[in-house]
Amino acid sequence: MKNSGIKTEILRIKKGIAPVVYGEVKSKKNSSKTLLFYNHYDVQPAEPFNLWHDAPFSGKIKGNKIFGRGSSDDKGELITRIKAVEAFLKTTGGVPCNVKFVIEGEEETGSAYIEKYLKKYKKKFSCDGVIWEFGYVDSKNRPIVGLGMKGLLFVELSKKESNQDAHSSLAVIIKNPAWRLIDAVKTLRDSKGHILIKDWYKEVKPFTKRDLKLIDAEPFDESSFKKEFGIKNFVNGKKGLEVKKALAGNPTCNIAGFVSGYTEQGAKTVLPSEALAKLDFRLVPKMVPKKQVLRLKKHLKSKGFGDIKIKIYHGEAAARTDPSHPIVSIVKKSADQAYGKSILNVSNAGTGPMYSFSNILHVPCISIGSTYMFARIHSPNEFARIDFLKKTTRCICLILDKFGKP
Amino acid sequence: MKNSGIKTEILRIKKGIAPVVYGEVKSKKNSSKTLLFYNHYDVQPAEPFNLWHDAPFSGKIKGNKIFGRGSSDDKGELITRIKAVEAFLKTTGGVPCNVKFVIEGEEETGSAYIEKYLKKYKKKFSCDGVIWEFGYVDSKNRPIVGLGMKGLLFVELSKKESNQDAHSSLAVIIKNPAWRLIDAVKTLRDSKGHILIKDWYKEVKPFTKRDLKLIDAEPFDESSFKKEFGIKNFVNGKKGLEVKKALAGNPTCNIAGFVSGYTEQGAKTVLPSEALAKLDFRLVPKMVPKKQVLRLKKHLKSKGFGDIKIKIYHGEAAARTDPSHPIVSIVKKSADQAYGKSILNVSNAGTGPMYSFSNILHVPCISIGSTYMFARIHSPNEFARIDFLKKTTRCICLILDKFGKP
Repeated sequence: MKNSGIKTEILRIKKGIAPVVYGEVKSKKNSSKTLLFYNHYDVQPAEPFNLWHDAPFSGKIKGNKIFGRGSSDDKGELITRIKAVEAFLKTTGGVPCNVKFVIEGEEETGSAYIEKYLKKYKKKFSCDGVIWEFGYVDSKNRPIVGLGMKGLLFVELSKKESNQDAHSSLAVIIKNPAWRLIDAVKTLRDSKGHILIKDWYKEVKPFTKRDLKLIDAEPFDESSFKKEFGIKNFVNGKKGLEVKKALAGNPTCNIAGFVSGYTEQGAKTVLPSEALAKLDFRLVPKMVPKKQVLRLKKHLKSKGFGDIKIKIYHGEAAARTDPSHPIVSIVKKSADQAYGKSILNVSNAGTGPMYSFSNILHVPCISIGSTYMFARIHSPNEFARIDFLKKTTRCICLILDKFGKP
Repeated sequence: MKNSGIKTEILRIKKGIAPVVYGEVKSKKNSSKTLLFYNHYDVQPAEPFNLWHDAPFSGKIKGNKIFGRGSSDDKGELITRIKAVEAFLKTTGGVPCNVKFVIEGEEETGSAYIEKYLKKYKKKFSCDGVIWEFGYVDSKNRPIVGLGMKGLLFVELSKKESNQDAHSSLAVIIKNPAWRLIDAVKTLRDSKGHILIKDWYKEVKPFTKRDLKLIDAEPFDESSFKKEFGIKNFVNGKKGLEVKKALAGNPTCNIAGFVSGYTEQGAKTVLPSEALAKLDFRLVPKMVPKKQVLRLKKHLKSKGFGDIKIKIYHGEAAARTDPSHPIVSIVKKSADQAYGKSILNVSNAGTGPMYSFSNILHVPCISIGSTYMFARIHSPNEFARIDFLKKTTRCICLILDKFGKP
């Protein structure tokens, strides 16, 4: 940012907490409008390393792709924004509106402190709109203008039965924590994925007619998607509108990880002493993470699994921006200009701390970016597409230009 | 063995298969009796490394203990036998009976080729009795004279749903193999451990009155055992005779390993592409591994889990030696002499290829050794007790002496 002419600052709230990197450029035209770019400098773990074709942090360029953990999520997005601002500074000597950058370091682990940063630096971060940290581009080169994000509850369930692994012949008398944990997680949902925790869906509202119309209008290339992931059918055989509705509005209970005992190649006759399950629950608007945690705890207890240890990693509420807000059409038009066509998306299937931003700063949040939808973010061989990085940089320039106009 | 004056030979059946190390000493007294020691030179994997206080192959001595993977299982046992033979050779110039050593290299992965070795070298291995590769000593310093072993079926169940790990937000449409595999393994047993596979117990016979009497007479220190493993209760609250009966005669379905997705520290919102479960089933006499495999396969298919991939690691039948065989009293008396008191055990809870030996060589197999029952074999910080190594060496000398008498 410094190299691009952006005034920077490191903001801290507490030792041991990743700082926020802040950037600011004031418009010379005394524009009253301020646009805030939210990004993050942390990445998901690169494991499993053995599945990467190149070292995860090599930044290897092959044809139109830059490979590396973080190449799309979120360094790719960030660089388009910095370069858009740099372009204005270098060509016109100033930016059309005031620009702020908030770049945090704990997004991938659930943005546990972003709310504290937002509260502490509420004034510094004041703005008229937030451009979200990412935005997808679909398989037909159409950027997705995102108006919402799901919430997330990430928990770890664990069970310890003894103080050491034992020879598996002792399974006749020593309890196996893997069986116990399997019994416990099995109570959380039915085989179709419906969550069986009491009142889990209590606050969930059906889509409005307007939302449903927008969702129906969203293109989704089922066959490209299936081909990319090598799958024949979607969950429960979903098709068409059902798939799009699920992405925008279905809560889930996903096993992100499960481990117990010997997991390497070959056989080992061991009776594990511990078992561990990492679960993530996607939440939709009106579901309150803290409330859902209590429901999960109550559920396990009532089903006789009070002995299962629960560790809460984080909870985040879902958020959605009103499609009729003026910023929506500014971003939509810019995306259309830069890419030829863009798509309006009611809610992304993923999660970010959008609720904290919209709730504390009282501004609309909108997502637009350069991440190809099959860019393998969070997975081995993540990449960024160079053509999209260029087009998105132009798109950001257009947004700044339109947003700065009185 | 060479250093101890034992004639050695490397036996091979096929390239890529671990060879058998064979040893032989003929009695100068032209004894017609031959005792065969069965041992193995391979070990269980040392993982998880981080739980070892010393390097797993350091052989660190602390007080009365030698720590290391294989220190008890099976190098400790082997050394007592070699040293017993060496003692006779050095002090009397010969052994009281003919002695043979069969030391294999694939015991810990299920002795997949021992049957082939036994068939190929049936004549070379001919003998009147087999001393098994291990023997336990209980917490009151009483060696256990073992007359039987359970069988084992080790299988790996796996499920792949897609060709790559995905962002967990996609769990609304991409199937999660961990859920599928959990659903599948959950059908294998009830929460009390009873196996639900059709006809699984069909050939299982109840204990004879004589066996039950022997089992009842076996001491088992429940409180020491519970203390060692840090457990409050046994499976299903078993106590007394029930515990001993379970160890000697209960089949099990144990999860030796289960892994899917992200299993390191912290949170990662991933939707795994694969899930894997390693299961071991202990078998009792009359259960035929091949038959049980077919029953498992049929079960999964009939429960709608024909999509679960099954890999068979190995199957081994259970075996038991008749308590009235003369060799039993020779070993029992020798153990009593060396340790003060010993215990007769109808069947060990663990597994070894005893069935192959007794079935091919047509001889009784009997287990006696130096392994402390809490020696953490197969687990981190395995150790051997030096006092037991010495006493067992003397016990083996006594067995050779009595066995050689006409």
